[in-house]
Amino acid sequence: MAKIPYKIYLSESEMPTQWHNVRAVMKELPDPFINPATGKACTFDDLRPVFCDDLIEQELNTKDLYIDIPGEIMDFYKMYRPSPLVRAYNLERELETPAEIYYKFEGNNTSGSHKLNSAAAQVYYAKKQGLTHLTTETGAGQWGTALAMACAFYGVDLKVYMVKVSAEQKPHRKNVIRTYGGEGIPSPSDTTEIGRKILAENPGTGGSLGCAISEAMETALKTENCRYVLGSVLNHVLLHQTIIGQETYAACKKYDIQPDIIIGCAGGGSNLGGLISPFMEDRILGKTNTQFVAVEPASCPSLTRGRYAFDFGDTGKTTPLMRMYTLGSGFIPSPNHAGGLRYHGMSPILSKLYHDGYMSAVSYEQTKVFDAAIRFARVEGTLPAPESSHAIKAAIDEALRCKETGEEKTILFGLTGTGYFDMTAYAAYLDGAMTDYIPTDEDLEKGFATLPKVDF
Amino acid sequence: MAKIPYKIYLSESEMPTQWHNVRAVMKELPDPFINPATGKACTFDDLRPVFCDDLIEQELNTKDLYIDIPGEIMDFYKMYRPSPLVRAYNLERELETPAEIYYKFEGNNTSGSHKLNSAAAQVYYAKKQGLTHLTTETGAGQWGTALAMACAFYGVDLKVYMVKVSAEQKPHRKNVIRTYGGEGIPSPSDTTEIGRKILAENPGTGGSLGCAISEAMETALKTENCRYVLGSVLNHVLLHQTIIGQETYAACKKYDIQPDIIIGCAGGGSNLGGLISPFMEDRILGKTNTQFVAVEPASCPSLTRGRYAFDFGDTGKTTPLMRMYTLGSGFIPSPNHAGGLRYHGMSPILSKLYHDGYMSAVSYEQTKVFDAAIRFARVEGTLPAPESSHAIKAAIDEALRCKETGEEKTILFGLTGTGYFDMTAYAAYLDGAMTDYIPTDEDLEKGFATLPKVDF
Repeated sequence: MAKIPYKIYLSESEMPTQWHNVRAVMKELPDPFINPATGKACTFDDLRPVFCDDLIEQELNTKDLYIDIPGEIMDFYKMYRPSPLVRAYNLERELETPAEIYYKFEGNNTSGSHKLNSAAAQVYYAKKQGLTHLTTETGAGQWGTALAMACAFYGVDLKVYMVKVSAEQKPHRKNVIRTYGGEGIPSPSDTTEIGRKILAENPGTGGSLGCAISEAMETALKTENCRYVLGSVLNHVLLHQTIIGQETYAACKKYDIQPDIIIGCAGGGSNLGGLISPFMEDRILGKTNTQFVAVEPASCPSLTRGRYAFDFGDTGKTTPLMRMYTLGSGFIPSPNHAGGLRYHGMSPILSKLYHDGYMSAVSYEQTKVFDAAIRFARVEGTLPAPESSHAIKAAIDEALRCKETGEEKTILFGLTGTGYFDMTAYAAYLDGAMTDYIPTDEDLEKGFATLPKVDF
Repeated sequence: MAKIPYKIYLSESEMPTQWHNVRAVMKELPDPFINPATGKACTFDDLRPVFCDDLIEQELNTKDLYIDIPGEIMDFYKMYRPSPLVRAYNLERELETPAEIYYKFEGNNTSGSHKLNSAAAQVYYAKKQGLTHLTTETGAGQWGTALAMACAFYGVDLKVYMVKVSAEQKPHRKNVIRTYGGEGIPSPSDTTEIGRKILAENPGTGGSLGCAISEAMETALKTENCRYVLGSVLNHVLLHQTIIGQETYAACKKYDIQPDIIIGCAGGGSNLGGLISPFMEDRILGKTNTQFVAVEPASCPSLTRGRYAFDFGDTGKTTPLMRMYTLGSGFIPSPNHAGGLRYHGMSPILSKLYHDGYMSAVSYEQTKVFDAAIRFARVEGTLPAPESSHAIKAAIDEALRCKETGEEKTILFGLTGTGYFDMTAYAAYLDGAMTDYIPTDEDLEKGFATLPKVDF
């Protein structure tokens, strides 16, 4: 075996052409989504007003282990994929660890993250179904940017409702969306009934993700040939993100790399779910004993301190009920710069795997995460996104444990994106102005009190 | 021959390990630098107070066609290189051109541009010589960022004097520099004599590149174990940038791609000089008839409207005299968002090649450049830097000419960087608030009047 290069790039002909659907090998499936109106499992028809047909099929598909990626989506992927699997030689040297450290880097595209993997798929299927318009919401802005890029490519109109306070803090995210022909609308806005209502009641509000979702959904329902699309949590989003895991798996096979532990940050769970999917198959089938670790912010600890319960996906309580680890849809996370990890729940697939003991979880305070981010940047070059840096922190801790024990573990983590649009947070850290926040048990109880009273 | 992939990545073992020194095959060499104090060609000893010994050797080396890249620099390069040579299939389809279009993309690193190629080399040689501190100036900020990354990696202290108005417009560039442990100082500052003098005379000034250079040089001379480093124009900088051309050349050989025309934006000239170097050897030796095109902003047209004359490299008139195409060191370019292309002169090597008819040049107004940038972004995904977009504009024009004539030319251009820190300029364009500026003949005469009166 030749020395492993700094960066493993699969050739175009080695690129996986199928997504990986781990549900097909899970011993127990996640609970189905529940239609709150009927109390019964959501059917294909229940979901049709909201999602494209192909996406609903993927959402409900628990049988097929592999799902072909259409050629048109492969063409899009080839613009920025395969992404590199990087051997962190410099970080290993810096830490003086006997561990081998690898990271799968998804930041080398203009959206700056893995979000583009699902955006491309969702816009393609919308276009295929004859839709001409899409709406979505964005908090940190990576999803909105990714969707704008895909909409420009496939020729679909896009409105992005951006949480007003984020839009004002990161004005250039909106400008990137505009560059790709999308419209970025600070939310609450006067373009929807719900937005006008909120503005009338609370003129100075900075908005919230819940409000932006409500505006995007209202606009989608009122616009012809339009649907609302979502960037995480759902099964079909995780499915699209398995292109990350499929490539990583192929690269590991090619170089005979056997990860002992795979680490990823987890907000809604799509990147981690995508990264681990084919490795989880091996674990479920007893072929390996790979450990999987989800890393979340201490300020929004859905796995480590949440409940496994049926809950709504949005604060407006309009989605189907999903059984997942959740802090309650009414949980209000503290202002936390790792914007993409502020979701109250966790992907139902990951929640189930965690519940069944296939995955563990840790949480970190954000100043510790930025410590790790900067240590990483200075030796590995890439300036990481705050979200991704949660995984870096966990990987460094694991490597330092190996240094103590002498174990030569193989550690692999997902570096989901770059922090180029997060420099306000870096500046706060460098100025010593960043604080940590851990919700009290009382804070959590307030969130749990918003869980729906259901009994299935 | 298999179908050419969207992105050609050389494997690590295929990476070139030598820089290419085109001077070794030029039929006539560029004029030597002149020491203005003696009126004679600069010697090694003349340059020692300013540059590291290894860099001076490279600066003066006109004999060796190949110069080995030290292993320590190769290790740095492997973090972000090889960069991809991209086949612009989507742009070709969008333009309906029979031409094949390729671009060498240097933006996939945190500095966002090719600048890192020379930063790594310069910091390595400084460290090797036992230096502990470096100073530089930065305008648009890419060079400062690149140098901070290299200084973090090799463990060298860095002060970056940032043109105050740019530092204020792009505060996050400074934060990136800080993240890598560098110090960004808005110039003019109170840290130097010249800075204090300028501030006293003109308290509200936004600074200039000339002033920032003067402050960086003063600090370098007053600090022990310190040198001043420069990111473009000089022969050794072009040499380091030939890693771009060496990789491109190897990729072209591997896939039997024979460029008919190679296009690059040109400010100081380092990226274009680096890209074309090995291809220019073939042209000089009569093996090919490849055309080379430098693209510059109409607002700062050193090649297309400048004079081939001996001039200072800085507005403070402290550097050796270089024979180059220049607008005069006193030429004041209009406020132009393509910050990296605002230099009054052009690399002596490129100037000589242009003067001898091996290269042509065109200039474009910036609104046309942004038209092209956005057209490119929407089909190729990547949001390009304004500087790089000059090359995109020229490549699109060439491809459209091919569409008219039916010629199946192979067009290759350098995409030097991303525009993520240039969104203010994109917003101005999208808002219709961007204007063009072409200097009048009178404007140019004022610049030419600042040329030194020399006769060698």
